[in-house]
Amino acid sequence: MPLAALYQGKRSFTVTDTAPLPPGRGEVRLDVAYVGICGTDIHIFHGAMDARVKPPQIIGHEMSGTVAELGPGVTGLAVGDPVVVRPLDNRAETPADRGLGHICRGLKFIGIDSPGAYQNSWTVPAFTVHKAPAGTDLRLAALAEPLAVACHDVRLGAVRPGELAVVIGGGPIGMLVALVARAAGAQVIVSEVNESRLTFARSLGFEAVNPATTDLPALCRARSEDRGADLVFEVSGARAAAASMTDLLALRGRVVLVAIYPKPVELNLFQFFWKELKLVGARVYEPEDYEKALRLIAEKSLPLERFVTRVEPLARIQQAFEQLDAHPDAMKVLIDCRAA
Amino acid sequence: MPLAALYQGKRSFTVTDTAPLPPGRGEVRLDVAYVGICGTDIHIFHGAMDARVKPPQIIGHEMSGTVAELGPGVTGLAVGDPVVVRPLDNRAETPADRGLGHICRGLKFIGIDSPGAYQNSWTVPAFTVHKAPAGTDLRLAALAEPLAVACHDVRLGAVRPGELAVVIGGGPIGMLVALVARAAGAQVIVSEVNESRLTFARSLGFEAVNPATTDLPALCRARSEDRGADLVFEVSGARAAAASMTDLLALRGRVVLVAIYPKPVELNLFQFFWKELKLVGARVYEPEDYEKALRLIAEKSLPLERFVTRVEPLARIQQAFEQLDAHPDAMKVLIDCRAA
Repeated sequence: MPLAALYQGKRSFTVTDTAPLPPGRGEVRLDVAYVGICGTDIHIFHGAMDARVKPPQIIGHEMSGTVAELGPGVTGLAVGDPVVVRPLDNRAETPADRGLGHICRGLKFIGIDSPGAYQNSWTVPAFTVHKAPAGTDLRLAALAEPLAVACHDVRLGAVRPGELAVVIGGGPIGMLVALVARAAGAQVIVSEVNESRLTFARSLGFEAVNPATTDLPALCRARSEDRGADLVFEVSGARAAAASMTDLLALRGRVVLVAIYPKPVELNLFQFFWKELKLVGARVYEPEDYEKALRLIAEKSLPLERFVTRVEPLARIQQAFEQLDAHPDAMKVLIDCRAA
Repeated sequence: MPLAALYQGKRSFTVTDTAPLPPGRGEVRLDVAYVGICGTDIHIFHGAMDARVKPPQIIGHEMSGTVAELGPGVTGLAVGDPVVVRPLDNRAETPADRGLGHICRGLKFIGIDSPGAYQNSWTVPAFTVHKAPAGTDLRLAALAEPLAVACHDVRLGAVRPGELAVVIGGGPIGMLVALVARAAGAQVIVSEVNESRLTFARSLGFEAVNPATTDLPALCRARSEDRGADLVFEVSGARAAAASMTDLLALRGRVVLVAIYPKPVELNLFQFFWKELKLVGARVYEPEDYEKALRLIAEKSLPLERFVTRVEPLARIQQAFEQLDAHPDAMKVLIDCRAA
């Protein structure tokens, strides 16, 4: 029998036998390979989303795997294909959503609002499945979801070669944004307060500074012939970052807002006016961002291997969550969901 | 002798004889026709900008007039040409300003940082002068400056035909934005709390509502097949407007920030993220906005005559400022600066 990890609420998983779900019309059953632990998963683990997740529930959405079985009517996929899932169910989309399925009002997030990937065998709608290039490393393919977030952020930021970008917040998403922005030709400075994350960022070749001890606006001017930064990616969610990010920017500089601010925060709107700054919110990803992420993974041009802090077997998911929760400096912890 | 109005500080003007300033190389001397009283002029009148204006000083920047005399090296203008002045002196621009002269760091605003237009005869750099089409009504041409602000705002908002735009704040700039956005094909709702301004907006054919008594988000949805507004022009500078404007917008809706917020204000950044909203700051105007404003004035397609609340002679500038300050509901008060 395949295994599944059930989130039970109260910081607790149980791993149990489960029957594989035969794929219905338009569905695909996948053999799951690796599933990354997302910050949202940790948030769920804390019990903060129990009203939405409704434990007991299988969670997990940063996955890689292979096609195990095709339901009726599915084309373009074959058993054995390496794949990843874009965990957005937009079947409730309406014309009022303007064709923006990825942020439509009735969006369901697979792995939060419906069963997720921490199991050996996962059945999903075929429209969520992206085929990875043959030979793709399935460990790295489990990074496709957060990497697609970064691709979306860089695309909405319209990064151009030679621009100076500041990434505020050096967690997994921030560092992937930094890599993708650099691959797009930007010069990137990482702003982060955590020393081990600063060390990690520097090991990837980024100029990385602590804004508490470095005059970041002055650094931006020094790196741009006095213009200031062209872009800021705000990934930290810190009120101080929101308040001060406008100080970093050149005339007509842009902010890409990636972080989630649950409560209203103060912004320096005077500077938005004075310097004609722009701000754009960026949420999840669209299909082209997944395709871009899969190309980047297959190309092996980014040091993605460095993002895999460790791999734990599905049977140890409880310990993996506890350890990551206690030591959140880790970049990415993968759960190996391959059947024994 | 020509006359000039000198702002003396402490809510006081004196009108005195003045010698016309012969135009130097690259300068033009203008016979001033009409000069509108701007909100900034009232702000100066209150003494709020004395450190920058340095009274006694001639202020005023919303002007129309004719060319009286050309300095050496000036081409493209002839004595008698109807003209307006774009009161931005960007001669201190540097490469770090990225070619954005209108918001360059060393920008001097003519009529604030250097002598302005409340006088019969005004000498200005030729590069600030825009020729109006022959036959342009000089009273309406005095609206070119605020109308150019509106053209800039609508251009930076990238208004497309059929879009739903909400203008928050029905003062002179807000109402001109509403007219230009409507001319660009948008459906426009005006949000304003002042009853006489609401009446004025309705008299121009706009749906105009008080957000304290109308459910504005619901109205936006009702007018857009449930999508919400495509754009908000925030012209009010009210903290409540900044806090709630995100509620009005459709997915990927845009905010054009026109108002000046001297202090940081709270924004709902969650909605910027969730709906992938954009915000863009818009300040003053670029040359093409002036050209557009002059075309609109010459075409006579907008009801600009309605914006001229009254015209007062230069000799009565003190009373004109006092009256407008006491009754700020007026749209635009012009000072007739033509020599007697």
